[in-house]
Amino acid sequence: MDIQTYMQTLGQQAREASRKLAAASTEAKNQALLGMAAAIRSRAPELLAANARDLDAARTAGLEAALIDRLSLTEKGIEAMAIGLEQVAALPDPIGEITDVKRRPSGIQVGKMRVPLGVIGIIYEARPNVTADAAALCLKSGNAAILRGGKEALHCNQAIAGCVREGLLSAGLPATAVQVVDTTDRAAVGHLITMPEFVDVIVPRGGKGLIERISREARVPVIKHLDGNCHVYVDRDADPDKVVPIVENAKTQRYGTCNTAESLLIDAEVAERYLPAIGAMFAARGVEMRACPSALAILRDAGIEPSRLVAATEQDWSEEYLAPIIAIRVVADVDQAMAHINRYSSGHTEAIITEHYTRAMRFLREVDSASVMINASTRFADGFEYGLGAEIGISTDKIHARGPVGLEGLTSQKWIVFGNGEIRR
Amino acid sequence: MDIQTYMQTLGQQAREASRKLAAASTEAKNQALLGMAAAIRSRAPELLAANARDLDAARTAGLEAALIDRLSLTEKGIEAMAIGLEQVAALPDPIGEITDVKRRPSGIQVGKMRVPLGVIGIIYEARPNVTADAAALCLKSGNAAILRGGKEALHCNQAIAGCVREGLLSAGLPATAVQVVDTTDRAAVGHLITMPEFVDVIVPRGGKGLIERISREARVPVIKHLDGNCHVYVDRDADPDKVVPIVENAKTQRYGTCNTAESLLIDAEVAERYLPAIGAMFAARGVEMRACPSALAILRDAGIEPSRLVAATEQDWSEEYLAPIIAIRVVADVDQAMAHINRYSSGHTEAIITEHYTRAMRFLREVDSASVMINASTRFADGFEYGLGAEIGISTDKIHARGPVGLEGLTSQKWIVFGNGEIRR
Repeated sequence: MDIQTYMQTLGQQAREASRKLAAASTEAKNQALLGMAAAIRSRAPELLAANARDLDAARTAGLEAALIDRLSLTEKGIEAMAIGLEQVAALPDPIGEITDVKRRPSGIQVGKMRVPLGVIGIIYEARPNVTADAAALCLKSGNAAILRGGKEALHCNQAIAGCVREGLLSAGLPATAVQVVDTTDRAAVGHLITMPEFVDVIVPRGGKGLIERISREARVPVIKHLDGNCHVYVDRDADPDKVVPIVENAKTQRYGTCNTAESLLIDAEVAERYLPAIGAMFAARGVEMRACPSALAILRDAGIEPSRLVAATEQDWSEEYLAPIIAIRVVADVDQAMAHINRYSSGHTEAIITEHYTRAMRFLREVDSASVMINASTRFADGFEYGLGAEIGISTDKIHARGPVGLEGLTSQKWIVFGNGEIRR
Repeated sequence: MDIQTYMQTLGQQAREASRKLAAASTEAKNQALLGMAAAIRSRAPELLAANARDLDAARTAGLEAALIDRLSLTEKGIEAMAIGLEQVAALPDPIGEITDVKRRPSGIQVGKMRVPLGVIGIIYEARPNVTADAAALCLKSGNAAILRGGKEALHCNQAIAGCVREGLLSAGLPATAVQVVDTTDRAAVGHLITMPEFVDVIVPRGGKGLIERISREARVPVIKHLDGNCHVYVDRDADPDKVVPIVENAKTQRYGTCNTAESLLIDAEVAERYLPAIGAMFAARGVEMRACPSALAILRDAGIEPSRLVAATEQDWSEEYLAPIIAIRVVADVDQAMAHINRYSSGHTEAIITEHYTRAMRFLREVDSASVMINASTRFADGFEYGLGAEIGISTDKIHARGPVGLEGLTSQKWIVFGNGEIRR
């Protein structure tokens, strides 16, 4: 079978399965999830063996250590996958929820019903746990899934796919409800993202290069996350006790996450008051500061270790460093802060530190990003912290799902009408 | 200025204006809408003169009568535009609404705020009233708009644009909040739909050809409406008093609308009972019936005028006739009805006529269309009938806006966090 025919077959089977899943009971879906967890636990030796084959191949191919690390599956990782499946089973089922029913003058009652999107294609890189996570979220939200993992994890992904199938069949659901693409041919992705007749939405999870390519070439809507260039703005009326803790946490709690702050903006009125302490904290933690001329002068005058200070260039305002580096700029006021953010931000997450009510509320409303916070660390922008129970990704789009995407982001609402024989006059 | 530079200038101006609109008060937006209505009334002679120039050109170019009819603006049409603007001013402002605020274990309070999408591009054909309607909906929802009307209506659209600007300026809002493309160069559309840096969403309004072309070529999300192949299914437990009135209304109240029924499905158990009366009604109204063999036999036996009866082909199940023609098929049961709909429907609107509770609820849940109705005419699928107050179009997409799109469909929800100095542990 050629690759196009193969992908179309997967698509057709997924579309058929999606009809059955849309009608499936919550009980059946949960039973399938618990069955998958049980299969993952009981087949742990098989998963470890499959992972060992992938790791051997990766080492032979000379893959870098970080990639091999991400590829590795441990007994602890297997248990975490099983627990993740059980957690999704415990979440409320979003499907079938009826809301906003209103009687209209014509006599009809109009409302909305939450329903699955249909078929979701997920494209991801080496981490094998994504196979189980993504399968669980798609299934619970009533969608069929086609999963395309990184070629380095092929054996492990197929072993996990076997557990997923076992869970589906144990609950009487079609095995084709979750299909894992069984080829390393890169053309598979090209077909997956150009079959609108079989696939309703694509969720790419991985590096920026992968996501940009998929967005450019897809003929199907994409729920995507590009970069996280997040800002903290220290307002002139910031509570002094909140400034350093929030700035420190937003930048240094973890360097590699998308909700980490990459830029600090500070009101000129309080720059001299707070920058010395902020600079000392960053220097102590080994964070390089790329600062505008005003900030640089203040930091130098404060005696901050010169090797940590760099003059910022225009490019720094747009960077997602994912590293111990932060851009720092002094701004005239909240208006300049918001203008800077709306110009340079990737639209992920921004925070203001202030006790001033009107400026806080203006920041919430006028900053055009997926998450906007008052007096809290940007690191809270996360599906679990927001209470979604699970997260398929964080969207920097404005259409459909925005910010952390949980089960609801994988659903749609249709209009429903309860009539009693009404006709239109 | 070349066309690309011109469109980019419009885009840049729209992006800047969108920041101001996102922060604009409800009062300012309403004042602008009322100012537009006043300008349209006071400049009626100017609008009629501009329309006369368009009509002259259209007649000289030998345009067909239907198009000239759509292009025509009367005094009554001008008054209707002004009233439409006043109605949008009277609608509640969706922007800034805060919902679903919950306190999380970390201490932060997380919720959602409804905000504008940003910049909306609207591409439409000859009707000049769309210029005022679209401007009003975009403005009320806090979005900047770039409008590209049909070239046949250029003079009239520019005259309406003058009234829109007058309204905006009277309320202290930027004149660039609504820009009407002032060129008939077709390349303008190509640029408008490929500037994601300046345009957040495209709404095409017009024929299927226009919409398909835009969807194919856009590099920006499109809220689109393709065809309306709507179905009515008569179940074995239909209330006999509801069958003919709903079928008649769904097909014959208006032939050219997208929520008109194009296919009738009927349960084999009651086909002989209802088809003779349905066939007689259609024949009396001059509706051609394209029927499956079983339906054809029943209709013939019932003595329906043979000239109204045609054997259906496979193609008929997918047709949007927009004409006095209906496809008719006898199905074995509700499962076959739903399978037929999910296979052939365009996903717009479907209705079941039944008194059977479980089949009614299954139809609501399992039929994958934007509107699904029990015992009501498909003709109700409409923004005004649903209580949206206004409608920018009807979406057959599942992502973002589905079904009739009102002000809410032109907005997004961002996450907001009310903190008190919380940091992530």
